[in-house]
Amino acid sequence: MNDELYMKRAIELALKGTGFVNPNPLVGAVIVKDGVIIGEGYHEKFGELHAERNALKNCSDSPEGATIYVTLEPCCHHGKTPPCTEAIIENGIKRVVVGALDVNPLVAGKGVQILRNHGIEVVTGVLADECTALNKVFNKYILKKRPYVVMKYAMTADGKIATDTGKSKWITCEESRKEVHVLRNRLMGIMVGVSTVIADDPMLNCRLDTPHRNPVRIICDTNLRTPLDSKVVQTADIAKTIIATASEDKEKFSEYEKKGCKIVNVPMNSEGIDLNILMKKLGELGIDGILLEGGGTLNNSALRAHIVDEVHTFMAPKIFGGMGKSPVTGIFIDEPDEAIELNVTEISRVGEDLLIESEVKYKCLPE
Amino acid sequence: MNDELYMKRAIELALKGTGFVNPNPLVGAVIVKDGVIIGEGYHEKFGELHAERNALKNCSDSPEGATIYVTLEPCCHHGKTPPCTEAIIENGIKRVVVGALDVNPLVAGKGVQILRNHGIEVVTGVLADECTALNKVFNKYILKKRPYVVMKYAMTADGKIATDTGKSKWITCEESRKEVHVLRNRLMGIMVGVSTVIADDPMLNCRLDTPHRNPVRIICDTNLRTPLDSKVVQTADIAKTIIATASEDKEKFSEYEKKGCKIVNVPMNSEGIDLNILMKKLGELGIDGILLEGGGTLNNSALRAHIVDEVHTFMAPKIFGGMGKSPVTGIFIDEPDEAIELNVTEISRVGEDLLIESEVKYKCLPE
Repeated sequence: MNDELYMKRAIELALKGTGFVNPNPLVGAVIVKDGVIIGEGYHEKFGELHAERNALKNCSDSPEGATIYVTLEPCCHHGKTPPCTEAIIENGIKRVVVGALDVNPLVAGKGVQILRNHGIEVVTGVLADECTALNKVFNKYILKKRPYVVMKYAMTADGKIATDTGKSKWITCEESRKEVHVLRNRLMGIMVGVSTVIADDPMLNCRLDTPHRNPVRIICDTNLRTPLDSKVVQTADIAKTIIATASEDKEKFSEYEKKGCKIVNVPMNSEGIDLNILMKKLGELGIDGILLEGGGTLNNSALRAHIVDEVHTFMAPKIFGGMGKSPVTGIFIDEPDEAIELNVTEISRVGEDLLIESEVKYKCLPE
Repeated sequence: MNDELYMKRAIELALKGTGFVNPNPLVGAVIVKDGVIIGEGYHEKFGELHAERNALKNCSDSPEGATIYVTLEPCCHHGKTPPCTEAIIENGIKRVVVGALDVNPLVAGKGVQILRNHGIEVVTGVLADECTALNKVFNKYILKKRPYVVMKYAMTADGKIATDTGKSKWITCEESRKEVHVLRNRLMGIMVGVSTVIADDPMLNCRLDTPHRNPVRIICDTNLRTPLDSKVVQTADIAKTIIATASEDKEKFSEYEKKGCKIVNVPMNSEGIDLNILMKKLGELGIDGILLEGGGTLNNSALRAHIVDEVHTFMAPKIFGGMGKSPVTGIFIDEPDEAIELNVTEISRVGEDLLIESEVKYKCLPE
């Protein structure tokens, strides 16, 4: 029972790293001695100390003989920092309570084994589901080397993302729009189609009152039509911009590159750039998660390519009617049975809107 | 506190009349003496005894000196049955606890006043909101003489009511489809457009394992195109069918009438038959509530005519994509600000689907 309480606190701490640790996992740690929390810590920033070492560093008393609660199995390999198992052993920790094991099959259980070999009591699986959920992005990235993609769209109760005349400001309420910025902070990349850049000239940055950072902007631009005077190009020196294109026009590339954009060359398939190859390339660039804020066409291609892991549907309690745009549009299915199925994991009210969060369940291989 | 418990029971009883009392209200009554329920009753069927009289009839002990709990203010006028206030006075009831007052301004409070004039203690407003919600349909009908309209549609998470090829069997799960039959039992009429009759040839009846009755079928058919061999026409002798049309072809009328259909003549406006005039005429025919199971075009006209009171959105966790049909379609608005606004009153999970119930908030007069 107490184990769960301290693990809950460790999860709270882990979440404080949101936006700053990618592509590392979010991890929190709590050190308890004689029923008193003597140290807390979390992985604060990519490249810096892990949660366990931060908690040890912050101890108000000697950690010798204490219990450490950590949301993720302590690492046992040398990365940017030395292994956390070493720090735990050196500091005389007596008991280690682990939330989730590392999903990487090459690592999973090894950290635990090393601790046990040193006579430390290890308990695993405390609030395992919550601890695993903390790192959905990391878990996919570490196993598949591709970013975890969250498709987000805002629609009316009759399924429209714009009026007949293409207007969409605003469908959702202020609270929902703020929630989108929370997502932009949580996910390392943000992806849109070039049509969105041409139509709206958005900044695609993160605007929050709390500490945050800007996502890497990824523009799907088959024929390299992104305007050179667009905000995403003009501000590429302060927030990274990647243009994914099938164009081979090297001369044109340099114009974007001069502004600080990165060009990623991706071959075409029947619908535009091959999104599976793009995901592989973005994974290689260290991008572990993407918020897809596409229009209907890009959303459609992304679902058909099976790159989408989660769907966040913001539904505003209003009706546009008309022939307004749909969140997913283009060549698709004939039979209802062939629909892409979702598993609704959470329904919440955000201001006057509803937010429906789902996981995508693909039945077959991508086309 | 006890008053609320007994009123809750009275509400439960009232609901048992669902589908059988229209256009009367649902009413339940409980009689309590010395802390023991000695009689229960509800309005079971249109034209038969009211709840109070049924509860009195079912008493296992003399009701003299007892308290009666009744969800709606007892009637004090002679209708199909003599006034309930008389029965309460004659039976020596000492205390009357009322849920909701009658909304009809010509009646409201009069029943209560008569009881008080006879020295009976009357408490009003116990679980008033729940008791009022019981009779949303009746309350509109009694005040406006028009049916209460619930627009129901089933769509995917990307707002489609059919695939590109027009297929919609099935979008929602079995539990949701059953829930629609619960609605068909609750509301006295069911309305569709003639296109639905031509495309699907539906029965539009109520199929439930529990006691139920069929709704009156109302076909919006501007140019009188309903096929004579369609199920709604062929079965008009066993379940009422009303065809609302702007056609003046009296000869054709008689062909439908021979099968048992009723023709209601309605003038046209720019979008088809004038739905406001149709509602007035249906109100005159004693239809107090309608389930609108329209396609996008009829739904659109109904919203523009401001006849819709409630929207029930069944949302299936799946994505159709494509150019599939929308639940509300046709000429509508340009600016997001002009949207028809909804007030979400309930969100529930029905099997794997979501059911979002909303009230419509019209900002201006109908066009």
